[in-house]
Amino acid sequence: MVRAVRGAGVSEIRIYGVPVSGEVAEGTDVGGLVVDAARRCGCGIRDGDVVVIASKIVSKAEGMVVRVGGVRAGTPAKILSRFLGMREGQVELYLRQGRVVAVIPLKLIEGYLRRYTRDLKAVEEAVAPEPYLLLIRTPQGLMSWGGIDLSNVPRGYAVLPPRDPDASARRIRDRIKELTGCDVAVILSDTEWTLSKFGSIDVAIGSAGIAPVRRGFGSRDIYGKPKFGGIDVLVDLIAAAAALLMGQAAESVPIAIVRGVRYEPSDEGVKDITYPSKLLRKGLVKVVLLTSLFKLVHALASILRFFKR
Amino acid sequence: MVRAVRGAGVSEIRIYGVPVSGEVAEGTDVGGLVVDAARRCGCGIRDGDVVVIASKIVSKAEGMVVRVGGVRAGTPAKILSRFLGMREGQVELYLRQGRVVAVIPLKLIEGYLRRYTRDLKAVEEAVAPEPYLLLIRTPQGLMSWGGIDLSNVPRGYAVLPPRDPDASARRIRDRIKELTGCDVAVILSDTEWTLSKFGSIDVAIGSAGIAPVRRGFGSRDIYGKPKFGGIDVLVDLIAAAAALLMGQAAESVPIAIVRGVRYEPSDEGVKDITYPSKLLRKGLVKVVLLTSLFKLVHALASILRFFKR
Repeated sequence: MVRAVRGAGVSEIRIYGVPVSGEVAEGTDVGGLVVDAARRCGCGIRDGDVVVIASKIVSKAEGMVVRVGGVRAGTPAKILSRFLGMREGQVELYLRQGRVVAVIPLKLIEGYLRRYTRDLKAVEEAVAPEPYLLLIRTPQGLMSWGGIDLSNVPRGYAVLPPRDPDASARRIRDRIKELTGCDVAVILSDTEWTLSKFGSIDVAIGSAGIAPVRRGFGSRDIYGKPKFGGIDVLVDLIAAAAALLMGQAAESVPIAIVRGVRYEPSDEGVKDITYPSKLLRKGLVKVVLLTSLFKLVHALASILRFFKR
Repeated sequence: MVRAVRGAGVSEIRIYGVPVSGEVAEGTDVGGLVVDAARRCGCGIRDGDVVVIASKIVSKAEGMVVRVGGVRAGTPAKILSRFLGMREGQVELYLRQGRVVAVIPLKLIEGYLRRYTRDLKAVEEAVAPEPYLLLIRTPQGLMSWGGIDLSNVPRGYAVLPPRDPDASARRIRDRIKELTGCDVAVILSDTEWTLSKFGSIDVAIGSAGIAPVRRGFGSRDIYGKPKFGGIDVLVDLIAAAAALLMGQAAESVPIAIVRGVRYEPSDEGVKDITYPSKLLRKGLVKVVLLTSLFKLVHALASILRFFKR
């Protein structure tokens, strides 16, 4: 019989959206900004808080904004830019981020894009400079357009991701400790497409002071059996939770404080939980072979069943 | 210049983990359980709350628990079960869920599994009944093992996902309205592997009363340009946030109340934001062709650059 638990004491998490006004300039002390903004908006910073920061403001503070027209393109970028109908400097920036693993024409999903907008003209205007989604393998894992973003910067400019997001998170964590004496975890978040549904979710691209994955594989279930699972990507769950308050467009809430999450302190970062590209390549070959073999056996077995009737 | 905002009024979200004791039996009134458990633990139910429920307890209430040994396997399942080293009834259940799109040998990631456990013997014991991860295309999108789960049920039993998770969410929503008079949104969540990193996150497999995606595509950014994005999969973000409190193994927190999220009421469900399989098939062919062409042009351009030196 199932029963509600009386007086069990509810567990609770609070997420605070921390607004910031104006533009983050190169050289901004992001740790100082977090502390100041959290104090002004009333939630403050406490020991054990997880501070989630939109990676874009960290990029801006680290001077990762470039004028696309000023980027010198090599021959491959020049030729590919004509093939894709994108600007030469833009393609050069993508190629520098890593290996392109897929080129997805946005024409395919234009019907969906139209469905989820309040401004039909905006669809055309937003797709025009980026008619293809380039999925690029970076040291932080697969990222759309290699993590490069053309929005929330002046026209003609692009924001690159921080060079080493785990290191940036560590620096900000240390600075917050210095200013407040509090031990916090820091997560840099970015918006990524999800393949299982139509739309995007926020994920962690860098972290510090928090074990990125929960070490619960094989925990016993309510029947005492070791469970297949228990390895939540905690940093991604927290980045997603923070996205409920962090603005996507002009809302200017680039910081969220998540209070009440149980986590283990750790020196690992997000880079430690991305698959090494060797494993991915080797794995992909095995999966393709095995899947083909499975489908072949399945087809033969279905024919066999037909004759057995 | 960037400034913290004085007196902007912090936006805030609260997540309450709602514990339940004992086992959910077939026929349990899940809506009633939610209302009762939320009242007993102190957070209650209010208008506008999002109630997140582990899909597994909904499955159990709907009688979706089956004894694997009692499932009659057809010829394909019998033959494939020898090929995969899994039980016949188990393979039959997988095949009934939908088309198998990938067969992933867990040997590939055993090193990772060992890294994220506190109990090395548990890894072997948990992997033994499921040596391969079957990625299956169901009406709710791609799901590992078609959403079938062998944990938190007695040994020898399997839990299937609810037959129509959106419909189940609607029924629970209506029941909560009936009992409390409150208009809430309901999300059924499940744990899924994430491909970008090593581990799993929680996602929504059914929803009611909430627009699953935010309609912000092409919203103006802080420079007034229409932004490529703004289509957060809100139901997935909320499922992830709730997972911060919902237990993975024996914790028995199968319900979370998320309070303070701004969302639009809607009659859509999760099924409305999964890609139709025709689009996926057509899209995949185009993406493979286009990516190959891109790589070819890239290679030729790189050779050209070599000769230009």
